[in-house]
Amino acid sequence: MRDAFHEDLDRISDQLVEMTRLASSAMSRATTALLDADITLAESVIENDKQIDALREQLDMLAIDLLARQQPVATDLRIIVTAMRMSADIERMGDLARHVAKVARLRFPHSAVPAELRDIILQMGQVAERIVTKAGAVIAAKDAEKALTLERDDDAMDDLHRQLFERLVDGHWEHGTETAVDITLLGRYYERFADHAVSVARRVVFLVTGEWEPEELTDHEEREDSGHAQE
Amino acid sequence: MRDAFHEDLDRISDQLVEMTRLASSAMSRATTALLDADITLAESVIENDKQIDALREQLDMLAIDLLARQQPVATDLRIIVTAMRMSADIERMGDLARHVAKVARLRFPHSAVPAELRDIILQMGQVAERIVTKAGAVIAAKDAEKALTLERDDDAMDDLHRQLFERLVDGHWEHGTETAVDITLLGRYYERFADHAVSVARRVVFLVTGEWEPEELTDHEEREDSGHAQE
Repeated sequence: MRDAFHEDLDRISDQLVEMTRLASSAMSRATTALLDADITLAESVIENDKQIDALREQLDMLAIDLLARQQPVATDLRIIVTAMRMSADIERMGDLARHVAKVARLRFPHSAVPAELRDIILQMGQVAERIVTKAGAVIAAKDAEKALTLERDDDAMDDLHRQLFERLVDGHWEHGTETAVDITLLGRYYERFADHAVSVARRVVFLVTGEWEPEELTDHEEREDSGHAQE
Repeated sequence: MRDAFHEDLDRISDQLVEMTRLASSAMSRATTALLDADITLAESVIENDKQIDALREQLDMLAIDLLARQQPVATDLRIIVTAMRMSADIERMGDLARHVAKVARLRFPHSAVPAELRDIILQMGQVAERIVTKAGAVIAAKDAEKALTLERDDDAMDDLHRQLFERLVDGHWEHGTETAVDITLLGRYYERFADHAVSVARRVVFLVTGEWEPEELTDHEEREDSGHAQE
């Protein structure tokens, strides 16, 4: 049987998984709202983001309470600090889904996405949903090996992001600057969403292996940059 | 005389202030690099971001070490957890300065910024420098009153951001989609930079007053959205 402290840790882990579930649902529905110009769906994503924020707040309070009551050291301390970082990542993913929904709402009754870009945006939404669902599974199973597979999904996202930018700057753009602005920001929202999912998975690797690799996160940022900057 | 624990807390605070100084310098130089198409300066900003990353890592290790060794509760615990969140904010500000520098490098030997937008970008750079410098002063003096003045600087940034977007979508844009993409992302980098500075200042308010206002952070996000989305 587990003691009260480890039951609390399990609760934190469950709550992180639940947050990934909500973030996945939010990004999936935001993408549909965007492509179908569905204002009701967009509004619901915007409204429901509060749930993710509330879960994050609850989780952080529980974590701080655990630190104060249990005075953990070593691995237990590391788990709690890392969980707080993960909750920040996932909360931000919820924000990014809300940003996508807001673009959908802003352009209603039109879709912000021109017909010939729907396919890329759809794929970005699918990769986003896949990567956050995997991040949830990685947390639940503390599976460092599966965590590595998120890097490939993130590469797929970077690739889609590059394709999107190429369409913007290939000299054949005919949708005006406003749509170009929308697409630029949408591309960034999806890509940052995937970045945060990778960050969550890496934190699980850190918990399991004890190896902290901040450099990798920086490299990742570099890739992100080169993506948006069409280098 | 202060005990060893409080000396460590002072060290953490000093390090946060030093991080804001580096972030301020980075954004200031990135803006100059952008407007002057100065590749050497851009490269130095990109390279020096590692310093901010290293400081953050050091600070987080010191914080975790303090948690383990001193087992703080109540206010001391809150200070340490909050300091780690601040270091994450400021590190991200360094990343955003690096993003600006990368746009400068990408468009060299040209400037990414068309002549008629130089004034707005210059002002965004100045507000960014001012707001992060103030955030540093707020940390150093634990000054909750001064912290509130950052909201006004952030309003100024939002206003500049709106002006920038209006220029993009007013129907007179003549600089092509690639430049529109650059300007869209630059606008977002400056605005997010200011958002993180406000977040740092709010965390100081939280430490001083004990009042945690996550809702306000959400409202702030809302304002940010309406800025970029030209609502």
